[in-house]
Amino acid sequence: MTGFAVDPTAIASDVAALGRIGAQPDGGVTRTTYDPAWVQARDLVRKMMADRGLSVRVDAVGNVYGRLAGTDGSRTVLTGSHLDTVPNGGNYDGALGIVAGIAALDALNRDRGRPRDNVEVVAFVEEEGTRFGADFLGSRALVGGADPAELHATRDVDGVSVAEAMRAVGLDPGHIGEAKRTDLKAFLELHIEQGPVLEGTGTDLGVVDAITSLAVEDARVTGRADHAGTTPITHRADALRAAARMIVAADERARACGPPATATVGMCRVHPGGANIVAERAEFSLDARHPDPAVLGRLVEEIHQQWQAIAATEGVDLAITPRRVTDGALMDPGLGALLREAAGVCGASAWTLTSGAGHDSQVLAPHVPTGMLFVPSRAGRSHCPEEFTEPEHAAIGARVLATALHQLAY
Amino acid sequence: MTGFAVDPTAIASDVAALGRIGAQPDGGVTRTTYDPAWVQARDLVRKMMADRGLSVRVDAVGNVYGRLAGTDGSRTVLTGSHLDTVPNGGNYDGALGIVAGIAALDALNRDRGRPRDNVEVVAFVEEEGTRFGADFLGSRALVGGADPAELHATRDVDGVSVAEAMRAVGLDPGHIGEAKRTDLKAFLELHIEQGPVLEGTGTDLGVVDAITSLAVEDARVTGRADHAGTTPITHRADALRAAARMIVAADERARACGPPATATVGMCRVHPGGANIVAERAEFSLDARHPDPAVLGRLVEEIHQQWQAIAATEGVDLAITPRRVTDGALMDPGLGALLREAAGVCGASAWTLTSGAGHDSQVLAPHVPTGMLFVPSRAGRSHCPEEFTEPEHAAIGARVLATALHQLAY
Repeated sequence: MTGFAVDPTAIASDVAALGRIGAQPDGGVTRTTYDPAWVQARDLVRKMMADRGLSVRVDAVGNVYGRLAGTDGSRTVLTGSHLDTVPNGGNYDGALGIVAGIAALDALNRDRGRPRDNVEVVAFVEEEGTRFGADFLGSRALVGGADPAELHATRDVDGVSVAEAMRAVGLDPGHIGEAKRTDLKAFLELHIEQGPVLEGTGTDLGVVDAITSLAVEDARVTGRADHAGTTPITHRADALRAAARMIVAADERARACGPPATATVGMCRVHPGGANIVAERAEFSLDARHPDPAVLGRLVEEIHQQWQAIAATEGVDLAITPRRVTDGALMDPGLGALLREAAGVCGASAWTLTSGAGHDSQVLAPHVPTGMLFVPSRAGRSHCPEEFTEPEHAAIGARVLATALHQLAY
Repeated sequence: MTGFAVDPTAIASDVAALGRIGAQPDGGVTRTTYDPAWVQARDLVRKMMADRGLSVRVDAVGNVYGRLAGTDGSRTVLTGSHLDTVPNGGNYDGALGIVAGIAALDALNRDRGRPRDNVEVVAFVEEEGTRFGADFLGSRALVGGADPAELHATRDVDGVSVAEAMRAVGLDPGHIGEAKRTDLKAFLELHIEQGPVLEGTGTDLGVVDAITSLAVEDARVTGRADHAGTTPITHRADALRAAARMIVAADERARACGPPATATVGMCRVHPGGANIVAERAEFSLDARHPDPAVLGRLVEEIHQQWQAIAATEGVDLAITPRRVTDGALMDPGLGALLREAAGVCGASAWTLTSGAGHDSQVLAPHVPTGMLFVPSRAGRSHCPEEFTEPEHAAIGARVLATALHQLAY
């Protein structure tokens, strides 16, 4: 491996140190925005940045920045990821992008000295939305997409508003506008893949071309409770039988749409739920994804048509409640080419991937040229204690990141 | 309508009086074995029997008998049904067979006087198994199929054993053997259909040829929890997608088997149950029925084969746990012919049906020639507050019952 020197052991050690903050007795790590674990992690990240000679600051929303100041300094090339986790999450989701960014800036600083443009690494707050459901709060504040009204209106399960939680950690919610930046030249995020493709194909890195669009909705099927023994199959309005056909149909429509389309039913509840009672009601969720919002819209529409046909055949009522639609984003093609080129320089194999999960990068992409780099996830696992990336894979990612940042900022 | 005089209004009034005992604030009636509502209902039934001139006794298990004593008196023709209900059940299931039996004996007594054989009507305890899960306890005690060990071992949700509950209502569990009878010449049970066939075909009565056999089991599908966005559809071990295909397959196998086969999945639970998490585990029930135990066995076997094939295709594990298998029973063909003939005498239309639900009759059938008569259920509903049978239909049933009892006992 040529290029910048990055120590896999140091990356693994920094990831483990962050993972001990918020570690849960029942496994995994829970670090939610502005909670004591987040404060501790913020301070550790500040120390990691300062120890590598970066100048550190925390912005109005709590994003932590470490800067390698440029000789010009009017523009900034940014890298980084988020500091929060899902409940009982893993050590790598978000954290690795921060740790690898710090390692890349350290390598640049040591090998090439001062850049022309500023190079910065960021640790964003609240990407997962675990505490407040305020997904992407840190990156939205960066692009001017978070306002004080939201901070007062949005509360955690204990009724604490974002604004109150900010004040408790020394931030002034009235100043959130100051988190907005207009000096960014590019943003590059390194993240774990959270899927099995890189490992399965033996590829070192994924270069993300797009982040998927997402539609989440709730379906409720209402039939009629009947005695399981005395009501002939043909005389039933069986809510679960209908729901099962709908679940199968959603899967089939997504397969017919072709990769990377997905349709997932992860939740299903049945009422009254007795073994000898035909189900009166079945409620289930749909999570459908495709990078192209238009294709996603057609997929969801096709699924609805199939469901309506099944409801008619089965003699049940169907009510569909959209929960949310999130448009994804295209990554900057120029940065994609730059990342593939940087991979080549480093002797790393790269695969172009679409991200099926949401990332801060999709918030920045409409405002700043943005690129994403995936490193392999063992067994494709994420959002769980088993989440793992080989230190050597993480180091390859950091080297390619450093190479690309060098191209952009020197 | 010719034959015995039965007053529809009196039947409706007696059913309503029983239905007020155990009536729930949230609808329906809950009367479980040996509870205060059961004691009150037992006493009302005793009074109803005594008011019609029947001699009343309560046996060792709590079954209530009302007798029209015969001139010979060595043998007894019995009718009746059960006094307990499911939780929030209806007024008719069980109760109507007792009320109609009392009305039939009253009509016989008034019109024809003393019979040759004894004619009795019974109100059985614990047919539904609601309190103790001791299904058919009353009829089993009658045929000598309940023993003291069971009474001590079987407990309700509060930990009270059948034996303790018996003592609390003045019964001695050590004497349960005394409930056994050897003098029965025939048993005829009138019951609501609990299904839609009689109403749908505009038929007055159903003559039951067989009571279905039943297999209940629990299935557990174990796949792998994955991120709904980042794991391609083709890389998943989706427990709910697999379970949905299994639910559909069970229905299709039962349809292929043909009526009256049924396969019902009334319960399904999913873990972890998040909209954006591929299901790791799905648990569901199977309730399969067919009157012929051999056909039922083949149906269940075919369903299992389909499920195993689906599990293999979907890459999930499948564990099947049998909960119980209950062999049904054939009704006595001679009594079936007698009931159809009695219907003809009364000018009532009759349809031969297989019972998809279990009844005390299936316990008696191996020991005593047994016949069953169904009256129509409005909209086929049962085990719910909407359970209803037109008073005129109930009265037709009671007249046909009286006619058949007359044939047997005079």
